[in-house]
Amino acid sequence: MRTQVAIIGGGPAGLLLSQLLNREGVETVVVERRSRAHVLSRIRAGVLEQGSVALLERAGVGRRLRTDGARHDGCYLSTAAGMFHVSFRDMVNGQVTVYGQTEVTKDLYAAQDALGAVHVHEAEDVIPHDITGERPYVTWRKNGRDQRLDCDWIAGCDGFHGICRPSIPEGVRREFERVYPFGWLGVLSETAPAADELIYANHPRGFALASMRNPHLSRYYIQVPAETDPRDWSDAAFWDELRCRLPGDVAEAMETGPSVEKSVAPLRSFVCEPMAHGRMFLAGDAAHIVPPTGAKGLNLALGDVHYLFEALRRWYRDGEAEGLERYSETALARVWAAMRFSWWMTSMLHRFPDQTDFDQRMQESELRQLITMPSARATMAQNYVGLPY
Amino acid sequence: MRTQVAIIGGGPAGLLLSQLLNREGVETVVVERRSRAHVLSRIRAGVLEQGSVALLERAGVGRRLRTDGARHDGCYLSTAAGMFHVSFRDMVNGQVTVYGQTEVTKDLYAAQDALGAVHVHEAEDVIPHDITGERPYVTWRKNGRDQRLDCDWIAGCDGFHGICRPSIPEGVRREFERVYPFGWLGVLSETAPAADELIYANHPRGFALASMRNPHLSRYYIQVPAETDPRDWSDAAFWDELRCRLPGDVAEAMETGPSVEKSVAPLRSFVCEPMAHGRMFLAGDAAHIVPPTGAKGLNLALGDVHYLFEALRRWYRDGEAEGLERYSETALARVWAAMRFSWWMTSMLHRFPDQTDFDQRMQESELRQLITMPSARATMAQNYVGLPY
Repeated sequence: MRTQVAIIGGGPAGLLLSQLLNREGVETVVVERRSRAHVLSRIRAGVLEQGSVALLERAGVGRRLRTDGARHDGCYLSTAAGMFHVSFRDMVNGQVTVYGQTEVTKDLYAAQDALGAVHVHEAEDVIPHDITGERPYVTWRKNGRDQRLDCDWIAGCDGFHGICRPSIPEGVRREFERVYPFGWLGVLSETAPAADELIYANHPRGFALASMRNPHLSRYYIQVPAETDPRDWSDAAFWDELRCRLPGDVAEAMETGPSVEKSVAPLRSFVCEPMAHGRMFLAGDAAHIVPPTGAKGLNLALGDVHYLFEALRRWYRDGEAEGLERYSETALARVWAAMRFSWWMTSMLHRFPDQTDFDQRMQESELRQLITMPSARATMAQNYVGLPY
Repeated sequence: MRTQVAIIGGGPAGLLLSQLLNREGVETVVVERRSRAHVLSRIRAGVLEQGSVALLERAGVGRRLRTDGARHDGCYLSTAAGMFHVSFRDMVNGQVTVYGQTEVTKDLYAAQDALGAVHVHEAEDVIPHDITGERPYVTWRKNGRDQRLDCDWIAGCDGFHGICRPSIPEGVRREFERVYPFGWLGVLSETAPAADELIYANHPRGFALASMRNPHLSRYYIQVPAETDPRDWSDAAFWDELRCRLPGDVAEAMETGPSVEKSVAPLRSFVCEPMAHGRMFLAGDAAHIVPPTGAKGLNLALGDVHYLFEALRRWYRDGEAEGLERYSETALARVWAAMRFSWWMTSMLHRFPDQTDFDQRMQESELRQLITMPSARATMAQNYVGLPY
């Protein structure tokens, strides 16, 4: 089999890249280890930056996002000194759109099917080959048979545990990592959200986040020790703890119900440099992980896809290699900015096991600066709605 | 002996408070452990906030400051990516004034002498008494004779190692502290400054600061291990190391010469809560210490004096106690904001012994945000020129 761009990984990054390229007449094959049903079952991010929305519109998957996505003009920060609002609208004339990653993936599948794009699901032992040569290819096994896909370029969109990043030799690759000493216990429930916008809460008992997917589906998180087993938390215990950490009036009015999903996610910052090697380019979680505080994970992946798509388009349309040559550098500049933002949000809002009284006052002072200084709110708002591509 | 306000400590905070009160007709006595010559020999801060300048003007000690102080409209940040300028003028229409603490002290002595203010120098074993009673007093010994000063109020302006803070009982007092794992080796030299404004340098070998007192007197610092003995550093070794850490063109053009003073200062963040107990009020280093990065130490002390002076003035003029009752809370709000700023500047610019590659990238990303985002520069500029009283 032969194609122009082999895309390893069929999550939102791989699907969007395929979609954008197909619409430009560039051939792609998406090779994914899991089934469609599995990919759709993953509960992930839910907040889209302005640039992400524009990119999805451009890919022809903006219809449902436009009608079902909820525009948020700001968010709330809950502190010991009370709850206050950060207006993205007032600060940087911006907004974000709440629309689940699962819905983005569904829309991309539908659009890809309409274009007749080629997806291989349940591909075992996917391996990229000869990535520094002129003729790279990808192999895998499906239904017991070995397959080979020759291509011009390989897009590594296969996530943090994928094969693409480790295919960059250790001497070339440099990894940066911070593992946070806690996790998030998340609950999805078919209840009305606690507030009209997200509430990020700094509380002596630990961080909490009141989020949502739509008017009938809420997503809540509480900070827990990293090794927490979600089965140790009954729904009742979760709601009790969450209520403790949210502002009193919000907690009192909050609708609760049985959890539809309950899981613990670790918090990690991770970056791989470079994001390209030979004819292979990494995008999304394959190259970087952010802690979920600030909702940058999916948006960063889509940002990578924007840069990679533009570079590949220039190559196929104009024969220009510069975009591909500069892809890693360009993408990394934006990645590190979002890393800083996610690290800052995480550092400001969580209780750390080794946190001193002084450290705690620094958190409170950082929050107080946001309350009192418009330029500090503007910096937060600009990062939250997304830096320009 | 009897007075209205007994001021323990004759550094800039104590002298300024005395000066402001005397001009309002409130009687003071300043009791200082050291000699005038000793107080004047201390090389300390050199950058005054706008509010500090206004306060000194108001105290009648602005003449020499106006003619000899140098107005700076911004500062430079030197990074691996080059040197860039943060304009206080453009960002917040502000500026700072470079004028040494020694000069401020000289001006205050002259003004106090002109008013005939009472200073006791070389007072041994100074002790505040009955601070929670109605009739507080201060005792000391001078020339072998015991002295007693009765008063309405005691101002504790006696610095970090003074007696006033520990006079607040341990159960009442709460202390917050962060000791940084490095110090600053400082050199004063009779040379022209390296640049027209301060240069703060983040360098792989450690932080450096190119500062000045006047056009013929420069002040330079390099980050060194905390336990460094300044005698282990020859002038030549200091200049070599400094040149390494400053931008190439600055280092090349920089004038060097023999050091007039050379010393190592530790870096510490410290706050005592509350800043008042009974009829005693703490101001300046007696209540808080900042690391010198960002030049907040002297300015915070003068800010405390502003609040304390206003509160005492209202008491003596209008019999109103509210200002005194709220002094600690009011002063602490501004203190914590400056603590945050100094901690942030220190964290962003120094090499830490346990710094990971990820941490280093966070520093670079923080600096990059300052370069690329006007609101981030505005927040830094607002903090640097000083928050309003």
